[in-house]
Amino acid sequence: MTKWTYSFGDGQAEGSAGDRDLLGSKGSNLAEMCRLGLPVPPGFTITSEACTYFHVHEGSWPPELESQVENALRELERITGREFGGAQHPLLVSVRPGSRVILPGMLDTVLNVGLNDRTVKALALESGDARFAYDSYRRFIQMYGEMVLGLAHDLFEEILDEEKASRGYDVDTEFSAEDWQDVIARFKAQVEVESGEPFPQDPCRQLWSAIKAVFGSWRSPRAVTYRSLHNIRDDWGTAVNVQLMVFGNMGRDSATGIACTRNPSTGEKGLYGEFLVNAQGEDVVSGIRTAQHLTERARREARSGLPSLEKLMPEPFAALAEIAGRLEAHFRDMQDLEFTIERGKLWMLHTRTGKRTTRAALRMAVEMAEEGLISRAEALCRIDPGALDSFLHPTIDPEAQGEVIAVGLPASPGAVTGEIVFSSEEAERMTAHGAKVILVRVETSPDDVHGMHVAEGIVTTRGGMTSHAAVVARGMGKPCVSGAGTLRIDYRAGTVSALGRSFRRGDIITIDGSTGQVLAGAVPLRQPVLSGDFSTVMQWAEENRRMKVRANAETPDDARAARAFGAEGIGLCRTEHMFFGPDRISVMREMILSDTQARRREALDKLLPLQRADFTELFEIMAGLPVAIRLLDPPLHEFLPGDPQDIARIAERMKVDAESLLHRIESLREQNPMLGHRGCRLAISYPEIAEMQARALFEAAVEAAGRTGMPVVPEIIVPFVSTASEFSFVKKIIDRVAVKVLKEKKAAIDYLVGAMIELPRAALNAGEIAREAEFFSFGTNDLTQTTFGISRDDAGDYLEDYRRQRIIEQDPFVTLDLDGVGALVRLAAEKGRAARPGLRLGVCGEHGGDPASISFFEEIGLDYVSCSPFRLPIARLSAAQACCRPH
Amino acid sequence: MTKWTYSFGDGQAEGSAGDRDLLGSKGSNLAEMCRLGLPVPPGFTITSEACTYFHVHEGSWPPELESQVENALRELERITGREFGGAQHPLLVSVRPGSRVILPGMLDTVLNVGLNDRTVKALALESGDARFAYDSYRRFIQMYGEMVLGLAHDLFEEILDEEKASRGYDVDTEFSAEDWQDVIARFKAQVEVESGEPFPQDPCRQLWSAIKAVFGSWRSPRAVTYRSLHNIRDDWGTAVNVQLMVFGNMGRDSATGIACTRNPSTGEKGLYGEFLVNAQGEDVVSGIRTAQHLTERARREARSGLPSLEKLMPEPFAALAEIAGRLEAHFRDMQDLEFTIERGKLWMLHTRTGKRTTRAALRMAVEMAEEGLISRAEALCRIDPGALDSFLHPTIDPEAQGEVIAVGLPASPGAVTGEIVFSSEEAERMTAHGAKVILVRVETSPDDVHGMHVAEGIVTTRGGMTSHAAVVARGMGKPCVSGAGTLRIDYRAGTVSALGRSFRRGDIITIDGSTGQVLAGAVPLRQPVLSGDFSTVMQWAEENRRMKVRANAETPDDARAARAFGAEGIGLCRTEHMFFGPDRISVMREMILSDTQARRREALDKLLPLQRADFTELFEIMAGLPVAIRLLDPPLHEFLPGDPQDIARIAERMKVDAESLLHRIESLREQNPMLGHRGCRLAISYPEIAEMQARALFEAAVEAAGRTGMPVVPEIIVPFVSTASEFSFVKKIIDRVAVKVLKEKKAAIDYLVGAMIELPRAALNAGEIAREAEFFSFGTNDLTQTTFGISRDDAGDYLEDYRRQRIIEQDPFVTLDLDGVGALVRLAAEKGRAARPGLRLGVCGEHGGDPASISFFEEIGLDYVSCSPFRLPIARLSAAQACCRPH
Repeated sequence: MTKWTYSFGDGQAEGSAGDRDLLGSKGSNLAEMCRLGLPVPPGFTITSEACTYFHVHEGSWPPELESQVENALRELERITGREFGGAQHPLLVSVRPGSRVILPGMLDTVLNVGLNDRTVKALALESGDARFAYDSYRRFIQMYGEMVLGLAHDLFEEILDEEKASRGYDVDTEFSAEDWQDVIARFKAQVEVESGEPFPQDPCRQLWSAIKAVFGSWRSPRAVTYRSLHNIRDDWGTAVNVQLMVFGNMGRDSATGIACTRNPSTGEKGLYGEFLVNAQGEDVVSGIRTAQHLTERARREARSGLPSLEKLMPEPFAALAEIAGRLEAHFRDMQDLEFTIERGKLWMLHTRTGKRTTRAALRMAVEMAEEGLISRAEALCRIDPGALDSFLHPTIDPEAQGEVIAVGLPASPGAVTGEIVFSSEEAERMTAHGAKVILVRVETSPDDVHGMHVAEGIVTTRGGMTSHAAVVARGMGKPCVSGAGTLRIDYRAGTVSALGRSFRRGDIITIDGSTGQVLAGAVPLRQPVLSGDFSTVMQWAEENRRMKVRANAETPDDARAARAFGAEGIGLCRTEHMFFGPDRISVMREMILSDTQARRREALDKLLPLQRADFTELFEIMAGLPVAIRLLDPPLHEFLPGDPQDIARIAERMKVDAESLLHRIESLREQNPMLGHRGCRLAISYPEIAEMQARALFEAAVEAAGRTGMPVVPEIIVPFVSTASEFSFVKKIIDRVAVKVLKEKKAAIDYLVGAMIELPRAALNAGEIAREAEFFSFGTNDLTQTTFGISRDDAGDYLEDYRRQRIIEQDPFVTLDLDGVGALVRLAAEKGRAARPGLRLGVCGEHGGDPASISFFEEIGLDYVSCSPFRLPIARLSAAQACCRPH
Repeated sequence: MTKWTYSFGDGQAEGSAGDRDLLGSKGSNLAEMCRLGLPVPPGFTITSEACTYFHVHEGSWPPELESQVENALRELERITGREFGGAQHPLLVSVRPGSRVILPGMLDTVLNVGLNDRTVKALALESGDARFAYDSYRRFIQMYGEMVLGLAHDLFEEILDEEKASRGYDVDTEFSAEDWQDVIARFKAQVEVESGEPFPQDPCRQLWSAIKAVFGSWRSPRAVTYRSLHNIRDDWGTAVNVQLMVFGNMGRDSATGIACTRNPSTGEKGLYGEFLVNAQGEDVVSGIRTAQHLTERARREARSGLPSLEKLMPEPFAALAEIAGRLEAHFRDMQDLEFTIERGKLWMLHTRTGKRTTRAALRMAVEMAEEGLISRAEALCRIDPGALDSFLHPTIDPEAQGEVIAVGLPASPGAVTGEIVFSSEEAERMTAHGAKVILVRVETSPDDVHGMHVAEGIVTTRGGMTSHAAVVARGMGKPCVSGAGTLRIDYRAGTVSALGRSFRRGDIITIDGSTGQVLAGAVPLRQPVLSGDFSTVMQWAEENRRMKVRANAETPDDARAARAFGAEGIGLCRTEHMFFGPDRISVMREMILSDTQARRREALDKLLPLQRADFTELFEIMAGLPVAIRLLDPPLHEFLPGDPQDIARIAERMKVDAESLLHRIESLREQNPMLGHRGCRLAISYPEIAEMQARALFEAAVEAAGRTGMPVVPEIIVPFVSTASEFSFVKKIIDRVAVKVLKEKKAAIDYLVGAMIELPRAALNAGEIAREAEFFSFGTNDLTQTTFGISRDDAGDYLEDYRRQRIIEQDPFVTLDLDGVGALVRLAAEKGRAARPGLRLGVCGEHGGDPASISFFEEIGLDYVSCSPFRLPIARLSAAQACCRPH
């Protein structure tokens, strides 16, 4: 027989904190508080499984539920000495939802269940306060009418307003018991008109209807939407807590409030919260009346004239403070409490681990560890690494009143203000004159990298979290909003319009890449301040981390930022980025457009010293650390101009006619560049390019080692490998150049040649590849694209459909898909290490900076992750957490 | 101690036919013939391993080789009673190459090794023919000079010409012994001038130099190129055969010749071949003299005045006929023999399994099986399925003198003649007036399908064997030459130029899709004639085949062709092809460009009856057989026009402005359409499309079943699945429509819904998918693209580089890559069947028609393969062979 109900009260409970999935967060913690002997109004919890059963069976109750509820109710009557529907000591209950994850305010609650024309009189008699009793009854009718019968809120409010007006009252508190009785009569009549039946007087029918209403609210559109947005599964269902009513509104010696054991904004230790005298819980939440502070200290600091609970009701306050301390110690974390004081007696209604700001989380974690409440490892795991992101970048001042004109994807965090420009050329021109600009484009391409570099931030109207703009911006640590689809750009007119407003080139906007907002004008920003707690946590992270953390970086700026953020090497230097500089792109294009190897070599000879200088500087900055450099990866056409003027100019320089140049450009174009002539395929078709890069690299390594006196450890990544034969072909080229250069320079350099594992075939054949490859670098971006068959540049729209339809739980470009892509990474790691014990394994895809993915990389024992410099703190913390947590 | 030499002769041999890899084809068969007691000049074979050693060690001899050759030479002297370099009975040897796979004429041979100023005299004495002896000597010097010393052929020819002219001779045979001695003196002087050393008189030095020359020739550029073209590995090396010289030029009772045991052109049983009296082997090959027939019958049939061997030398002829019979019986296949008759005695120099035409192969296989020489299963395996292709299509008459203007890839077999057109519109216009046209384009897109349909054949200048043009043309059974990169098309001028010639619209060309040739003008074609042997072989194939063979077909014509070629169902009906008809494309475009679901549904309502009619016809043609229909697969933008006029026209029809239509077209465009918004992703974003297709399908199934009285078994393929959740989302749509339609029609239809497995993630998660999918159809084209990360439309050029560099052995789009793509197919099959025992598994990619791939599909136990109708005979034969051969 399935157990559907769990009773609690009287210092005992059938459930406990461990039953959260079954009893919900509220129910399991009520049970736990009972077990701790705390003053909890007794009651019972109907399990979330009952809710799931109810929905699966289209509204039928589980068998035996009725009898179990009956029994639980009898037990409750026994404990409280009250009778449900009794004319003497009527039992009144609240019916509250409580799922394993809190859906704030999304589900229905019904209070005062059990009140009817008869029990209200008993309540009046027992409380000695008829006004209170009838007020409670009218509240119940109203709540029941709305929640259970689905009547409109306004129906009741109108009656209330009429009654107030006819009596000349301003506020509800002016109503007398008799006035409320009039209101109740009208409410009941209204219910009968609207629902076709009189207001139910049978408490059991009230109870079952209320339970049904709570279950039903799990499927309400707003709850469904909320769950979809927060990755909460539909089949979890909600538990229902049926519990003795206690009243904070039973006079001046009653009160209700909420408290945190530490300040959720600052993290400071000490009881923190507010309360209202003679009020019900919803009054605190609704903010109708000004709440009072709990402690004298808080009152003084806020300079409030209203007395504190400490002063007003010292005994219940002391009890609350003591209970708060016990609960924090018991749950070993900051607790967020709900309580009610009924005629001087404190009742605990709820406790849960409290939400907190990132700043507070850091302080609490550090202090709790120092207090000995938790270990350092636990403290580390208390910080959400993702939350650090907003903490490391400027944000829009929450007090500021900005006009949001569009919302896109939060592609790269941070907020900035600048003038609108529509092209990289404009960006360069305007910044040369000292302007701060924001580059606004439909999408970006490698051609825009120079413009992105000088811009303060980037906005695109197309593309997802992993579009070109997003990836490059994150790499640069620049704010970016991508896929702001409601913006309409007219390049020719030089305008961008949204929400009926039009902005011109040079108009000021502000963007927040942490939220995806685009705002008109300059909006005040708040600069990040790194606290001592942050440093302490990062320090502890270092002590607990196994995996190394490297940075993806090409430019000297990036490399310096990487070192500053604690990078232990460069995990990915994308050499192609080095060819987009204005001094190089034209030589690069000449090289690409040459139709003989001899002419290509001429152009490459011009690129060699530039590339060597880049590498030398990088090696010097990273002295003593490994630097992984990837050979040229993108298809060559990505470097080519589309603009006829550019083509004409290049033709002139190359002394060829524009027509045949155009023909060559055409012939290089590809249907699917992502699957194109790229990666090691370039080195195989044009070995001279790989030779130039290898020469630049080895010459630079010798030079930098000579200057810094510290060994340089270059790791050369061969990209887009699918077969072992490709890899060995390219490795031979590199080794040949190494022998030659090191002989010329009479020097010795240790270097490694490894394969980028970013294609399913490479993962499947990792054993063969590892026989020659000295390390693997997992390129999880492209591996995700090929494993799923999804072009990330094109996927933005329908991935949204997918998330909405719950076809995927998470964007696989953000968090590694463990079942598919992860399975390949695991397989490749195993096969690779089987073929070459100790094979060095790292990740350089975007997932290298994603906490959930990092946890997986730790599990399968990779040696390092690499991410953009600005995500290093997140990666370092995540890597440490992965070691502290059981997998 | 490694054994480097294997002796043979005197009815014994150290090697045998099984040692082919070690001793080469020639050496192992010489040994085998010795073991059979046939008259083989004795000798020994130096193994191919020695050659490999020689090259790996940069020209060093393996240790012990010298002593082993020494011993083998002593043994040869013993058997022959001759002495190497002896003044009495000198031993002369030939030094011939012989690798495991024959490289015709690519490697060097040296004859008459052992001749010098002293032994030539003994040879003159012994043969009683001084002229012969000195002729042999001068031939030796010439051959040695060219092959061993690398001197130019002309050096010797000039001397010969001068000597002939000074004596007034016309032909070599006029030289006397004394004349030859003069020539020899000049040859020797020339050798000394050119090589700086006198011509070597030491026979041992001659022998070692000759061996070295043969080994060296394995690395000659032409041999390397040949191997690269024929997939022969460099490290196989060549063996060397050192063998007693026998002379077919020792007078009128001597001869040399070649013979086949059956006619290699027709397959007719009986000795077939030719010979020359008083000649060496190279004279037969060079064709200087008119060769004579072996048999009287052949002589009579050819009406030759020259006597046959049968008549001229009845005894050696009888011996040859008897030996030929024994060899064929022994090797159980047609043999190709070389022989020499020295003074009436027959010597066998070589035997090997002979090459043959496809026609002959069919006849031989059938007759040998009927003779009981081989089993039917063996007979089946004797036919190269790929060769059937040319046998089923018209070919260019081999006698014809055509002017080849370009050579592209043999993308779809068959030869046709027609007028050049440059667009599908032209093609339709001209064929409407009765013209036969060939569509010539840079590449084709789905927009061109209607033009391809009316054209006789297709030529493209870009794209590989699996480009759009190639795939569609093969599906249609139309000849296609793809990637003819030297053709330069100027669409505006309406010309195509090549090799300096220009052709205009309407000019006649001929193309041969079996060879990739494009020829000027009309060239005579030869029509295929299907022989009775072909039917017999296909009949035997049916008896031996396990896998079913289905066809990929959409149109009624294709479906009828499929049935005619023996299809056992349709494995893939690509519904998108049905939307390209001129009556549909515009409605399709309207549907795609609608921005609300309601408007899309309106357009879909117009498409429904058309689609239903298509399906009904298909079901009727295939009555009683399964028909697998794939839901719409390509990204929607593939249906959209690029031409501004078309866009304006559509805008007018849709009553929207062209600007916003253009915007919508832009927004649908994708960077990488192959990885785009396609397959089941369309059904998820636009469920109404899948609904319309499902409805059309079920309505058609009911209708067709009613008309034919035979059950229709629709199998619905959900394309481009990567997760189980995608599949079940789409399956629910289909099941829902099925319930609805079958209820409306009051009918029952058995149908299956299955997943296309064409993405690595689907293969990895096949177990989960199989829980809902009722069959798998492997889409190996796309699976190859994603597993390798190769866009097949873009890969033509560099895959060529890859083949040349031996990085891949075979185009993975032609033959399944077993290590990567095959591993995924195997994995998916295993996981799928583990989750759902008996899961039906088929292949519908191009590999479904490739013999090597079919063999793999048989090995892993798939249920069927599906290919284009015109490849059905090949697939049926291959599937049968896969059952007959051990894996």
